[in-house]
Amino acid sequence: MSSKKKIGILGASGYTGADAVRLLARHPNAEITALTANTHAGKSMGDVFPHFFMLDLPKLVEWEKVDWTGLDAVFCGLPHGTTQEIIAAVLRANPNIKVLDMSADFRLRNKDTYAQWYGHEHRALELQGEAVYGLTEFYREKIAAARLVACPGCYPTAALLALVPLAKAKLIDVDDIVIDAKSGVTGAGRGLKQNTLFSEAGEGLSPYSVGTHRHAPEIEQEIGVAAGTAVTVNFTPHLIPMARGELCTSYVRLNGGATPDDLRAALEKAYANEPFVHVAKKSVLPQTQNVRGSNYVQIGVVADRIKNRAIVISTLDNLVKGSAGQAIQNMNLMFGLPETAGLQQIALFP
Amino acid sequence: MSSKKKIGILGASGYTGADAVRLLARHPNAEITALTANTHAGKSMGDVFPHFFMLDLPKLVEWEKVDWTGLDAVFCGLPHGTTQEIIAAVLRANPNIKVLDMSADFRLRNKDTYAQWYGHEHRALELQGEAVYGLTEFYREKIAAARLVACPGCYPTAALLALVPLAKAKLIDVDDIVIDAKSGVTGAGRGLKQNTLFSEAGEGLSPYSVGTHRHAPEIEQEIGVAAGTAVTVNFTPHLIPMARGELCTSYVRLNGGATPDDLRAALEKAYANEPFVHVAKKSVLPQTQNVRGSNYVQIGVVADRIKNRAIVISTLDNLVKGSAGQAIQNMNLMFGLPETAGLQQIALFP
Amino acid sequence: MSSKKKIGILGASGYTGADAVRLLARHPNAEITALTANTHAGKSMGDVFPHFFMLDLPKLVEWEKVDWTGLDAVFCGLPHGTTQEIIAAVLRANPNIKVLDMSADFRLRNKDTYAQWYGHEHRALELQGEAVYGLTEFYREKIAAARLVACPGCYPTAALLALVPLAKAKLIDVDDIVIDAKSGVTGAGRGLKQNTLFSEAGEGLSPYSVGTHRHAPEIEQEIGVAAGTAVTVNFTPHLIPMARGELCTSYVRLNGGATPDDLRAALEKAYANEPFVHVAKKSVLPQTQNVRGSNYVQIGVVADRIKNRAIVISTLDNLVKGSAGQAIQNMNLMFGLPETAGLQQIALFP
Amino acid sequence: MSSKKKIGILGASGYTGADAVRLLARHPNAEITALTANTHAGKSMGDVFPHFFMLDLPKLVEWEKVDWTGLDAVFCGLPHGTTQEIIAAVLRANPNIKVLDMSADFRLRNKDTYAQWYGHEHRALELQGEAVYGLTEFYREKIAAARLVACPGCYPTAALLALVPLAKAKLIDVDDIVIDAKSGVTGAGRGLKQNTLFSEAGEGLSPYSVGTHRHAPEIEQEIGVAAGTAVTVNFTPHLIPMARGELCTSYVRLNGGATPDDLRAALEKAYANEPFVHVAKKSVLPQTQNVRGSNYVQIGVVADRIKNRAIVISTLDNLVKGSAGQAIQNMNLMFGLPETAGLQQIALFP
Repeated sequence: MSSKKKIGILGASGYTGADAVRLLARHPNAEITALTANTHAGKSMGDVFPHFFMLDLPKLVEWEKVDWTGLDAVFCGLPHGTTQEIIAAVLRANPNIKVLDMSADFRLRNKDTYAQWYGHEHRALELQGEAVYGLTEFYREKIAAARLVACPGCYPTAALLALVPLAKAKLIDVDDIVIDAKSGVTGAGRGLKQNTLFSEAGEGLSPYSVGTHRHAPEIEQEIGVAAGTAVTVNFTPHLIPMARGELCTSYVRLNGGATPDDLRAALEKAYANEPFVHVAKKSVLPQTQNVRGSNYVQIGVVADRIKNRAIVISTLDNLVKGSAGQAIQNMNLMFGLPETAGLQQIALFP
Repeated sequence: MSSKKKIGILGASGYTGADAVRLLARHPNAEITALTANTHAGKSMGDVFPHFFMLDLPKLVEWEKVDWTGLDAVFCGLPHGTTQEIIAAVLRANPNIKVLDMSADFRLRNKDTYAQWYGHEHRALELQGEAVYGLTEFYREKIAAARLVACPGCYPTAALLALVPLAKAKLIDVDDIVIDAKSGVTGAGRGLKQNTLFSEAGEGLSPYSVGTHRHAPEIEQEIGVAAGTAVTVNFTPHLIPMARGELCTSYVRLNGGATPDDLRAALEKAYANEPFVHVAKKSVLPQTQNVRGSNYVQIGVVADRIKNRAIVISTLDNLVKGSAGQAIQNMNLMFGLPETAGLQQIALFP
Repeated sequence: MSSKKKIGILGASGYTGADAVRLLARHPNAEITALTANTHAGKSMGDVFPHFFMLDLPKLVEWEKVDWTGLDAVFCGLPHGTTQEIIAAVLRANPNIKVLDMSADFRLRNKDTYAQWYGHEHRALELQGEAVYGLTEFYREKIAAARLVACPGCYPTAALLALVPLAKAKLIDVDDIVIDAKSGVTGAGRGLKQNTLFSEAGEGLSPYSVGTHRHAPEIEQEIGVAAGTAVTVNFTPHLIPMARGELCTSYVRLNGGATPDDLRAALEKAYANEPFVHVAKKSVLPQTQNVRGSNYVQIGVVADRIKNRAIVISTLDNLVKGSAGQAIQNMNLMFGLPETAGLQQIALFP
Repeated sequence: MSSKKKIGILGASGYTGADAVRLLARHPNAEITALTANTHAGKSMGDVFPHFFMLDLPKLVEWEKVDWTGLDAVFCGLPHGTTQEIIAAVLRANPNIKVLDMSADFRLRNKDTYAQWYGHEHRALELQGEAVYGLTEFYREKIAAARLVACPGCYPTAALLALVPLAKAKLIDVDDIVIDAKSGVTGAGRGLKQNTLFSEAGEGLSPYSVGTHRHAPEIEQEIGVAAGTAVTVNFTPHLIPMARGELCTSYVRLNGGATPDDLRAALEKAYANEPFVHVAKKSVLPQTQNVRGSNYVQIGVVADRIKNRAIVISTLDNLVKGSAGQAIQNMNLMFGLPETAGLQQIALFP
């Protein structure tokens, strides 16, 4: 009898779903037993992602057709807004299933903030209350005990791992944070959009959603928790001509005599025992190449030439630690497995 | 008898030299009559840049071999530090020649600042005093009358066109400017470096020279002139996987009740009659794709979610308006030619 | 009174239409007076192609709304199959207008071949009979006298310029031609397709339409004309992660003792007076970088290690000499203008 | 006591060395105990490859400083020509060590062919005689028993896996094989060369080493073995703007009535039990994206429109199955480990 956990993936035809498949198919304690993709129902996974030619995977089916009672966990890579009701139905069908939601539906704790940024009332409020925010390094115990984990967005993961320990330690002025964020094109998903065509996004660089990106309230929520006060941050995303990778250059003002070295020390202390978060040495600048395809995060601190300011740079792979990888890390916690199981791939460089 | 100006190019085997050739070879009033490249002397230009196969260009020679007395102007694309003595020698040989220096040697007016950032005393101080800073839009009259023009760096051109009118109009706090800058790989030149190999720079994004980039003092010098006070800015460059293009995302604090719309209005006023600098409409975000291969600059203003802050985005092609194109624009002024002569190519998109 | 030719562009929201705009807007003898794009009617060109921010262009309108009687020429960048009836209508409205069709609708002379490859009977047969195949170098006189020119596809232009002189001179066995073709992603147009997303086409290489690409019969038609016999060729296209550029590596068997040097000599003779087609010296291998953004073509010949075989390599920019540039070259001929007018841009490298 | 095999890597500062580290560091039965890189001796691996920040690796040392007696196997990623004498010295120091050579030094069995293509007499002829050609699928038993394995080049691996079963089965005319090969830029190594700079290799496509590439004799040697006769092939490589990946489009003439389906059937039979070589279904075209970062190979067969011809397409990752991955596969065989140990990563797509 197999002791592997039986896993379903909702929305397997998108990039986050596919990266969950890539990682779970080689996870020592997981077995993929259901894949859903309503517009592609009936196809094989190899039809929609030909790089899975070597795997023997279940066919894509409509989510309504899955017998959820036989599953131990479900990963959800559905579009924002469509997730909440489907998750609610899945949990009605199997109240014991563990849910790893990679969409944004359960990330914001405040229902008004949700309604403001997503344009409609939340449709599964009781689950929103139950959901644990899945930033592993800061909610480890709650995640281990949770049934529904709202895995953070890719940008929030990168920004928060850099800034939360500094906000907690009161080393930075949380009212003066500028986060200049850069993302590879997979961050925009597999949907057909003109601006993500190769001929449009290649060989060029575009700011987008400046002042309006939905990851801003998520970042503010968690820095607010860390600082014990409501905060507003500048969050300015840019589209970079690369498929994977995300880098946040955060510009911060130092509180009362704090130095860049103090910041680095606070980060080193926060992550001393973390398997995936590494603080770079003083002379090393993080770059996306160092984490591509991996669940690792690299953070560096640099002194600003302006007095009492510093620059904190953090990088991760948006589809791994920024999505499917962190979800698996959380699943490992929820099942009492080693936290690093199935996640120790080194960056694919070059 | 040809009325075309006879042009020489020092350092024609680098990218800025080559882009000067690309543009001057089709300039209606210019004729390339000398090309130097000491390490490639004796070769044809087609040997070092095969895309010039259709041109009939002079051979590459050592700069000492050129008869400078027959030339009307010289463009200088030599490495920083090597330029000053060669330019001095050229001007001794022909005191009437117009010099368009695309290197950094004559950009900093303060000799101590130069010595501090470039690590040695300037070796042609009297010429440094004579040189006019070649940011066309702000030094047009001086350039027209100059013999030696120090064309600005690519980053300074992008940053200053965005910020100088705002500093002049006292709309922004010049002590709180963060310039997050992104550049294509040609900005690093044609020299062989590991970090500019395709396999290293491709599919990834790297901050570099954070806090130490030599374009910072140049930006500070000119914002200081505009504001009437010494300033220190944050200038943080990033290497982006594209060949050409540069984009500065500048984060500014607004003075006394100024609004983002005030900033846009000030920029529109400053550039109302400029042929190459365009201020984007409120809803439009500049992107490097819009200016690739062209001499145009696009600037946009966006409101920050943090109160009393704004984001100013500017973009240009680092080899054109950021180097060879601006040099030609200045040459046109110096010879009394139409300022746009030879420079009206539209961006190559896609 | 302006002596500029009044030009309309059908399908201005696609890549070939946009490149026609890029070039015609700076053409000394052209004036763009109508732009159509039915799905974008009412928008400005800057809305669909923001890199035209510096141009003052007519609004996009539906093609039915244009008064064709006031125009001298029309460029057609519509999708294949939709062109023939619209062109017929335009010519009924203005029988004197010059038509530069950049679609495939009028390229195949044999109506059965057309029906076989495009899946329907041609709907403007009399115009198909009238149309002149617009491969400038081989149909110059007919083009000059034509009303309707069917500009060749990008791949056919690259392949035919390499092979037609060799077939004409009986230097190669036309029954044993393998054309391994590589194209940048703009070749697939601006339509939304999953395989042309940045995240799918980037950092990878895909053969496509092997044995079924519609450019094959066009190549066969013209090699057949040159050789005086019906031919079938191998034509195998590959999608390359670059926006522009096309390169054909053609593998040929040499007839009766011919040598690679004979091939090069035949090509040099054929193109001795051509402004845009250059035969590379023996040691030089063409590369797409040499022609990017330009109307130039570069062709090279290399000896094969297999006896009596040779390799002929040809490259061009698919949107310029492969489409809009060649159309303008033909327009110049049709109006008695210098053939190179508006077309002498040098490749944008790097 | 650890039962892990102790592994050294010669030339760990190159790309093949680094990919061996990436894979071996996570191999269940391997332990990296020595890393050499003579020009970087004294540095940490993280200094030369910062993406290894999470690993605890031995320092880089000069190869002469290693105590080879304590090692079970050595991987060699040194430049061609420098390997043979170093390997000879290592084997003198420890005659029982298993050698996985990823350079070209021991691939050619004929000493005259070696001397002709590499420009000097072989300097370890007795080892050349001993070396087993490491194309796992065809030399499995010899590899398992070998001490020194000459791992094939990346192009030969891709071409031979496609063509050897067809040559063996006499389905193709081995005197008429054209291999149009495309490679990512890592194939050129980490050395500093102008043509592999991002600004030169990006956004363009270049044929190179046409008729002179040293992988040609290696391909001919092995097709010759399969066919039982000396053969000459056309092998034409192209540099593609992607870091990893290789695809060979092979054009073949069919023998006596053979069909493309016969070819596919022969390949399916040859690889029915192979863990890493997959034959694509009739309608599927291989693409490099499907194997990026993995040890898998995908092969497809397509009918040519020319009678009695077919197209065979094969793809792999040049640094994995084309180098370090195949070397590890061979090491697994030599140590009696499961052949797939440490090698089952799925392609990183997107």
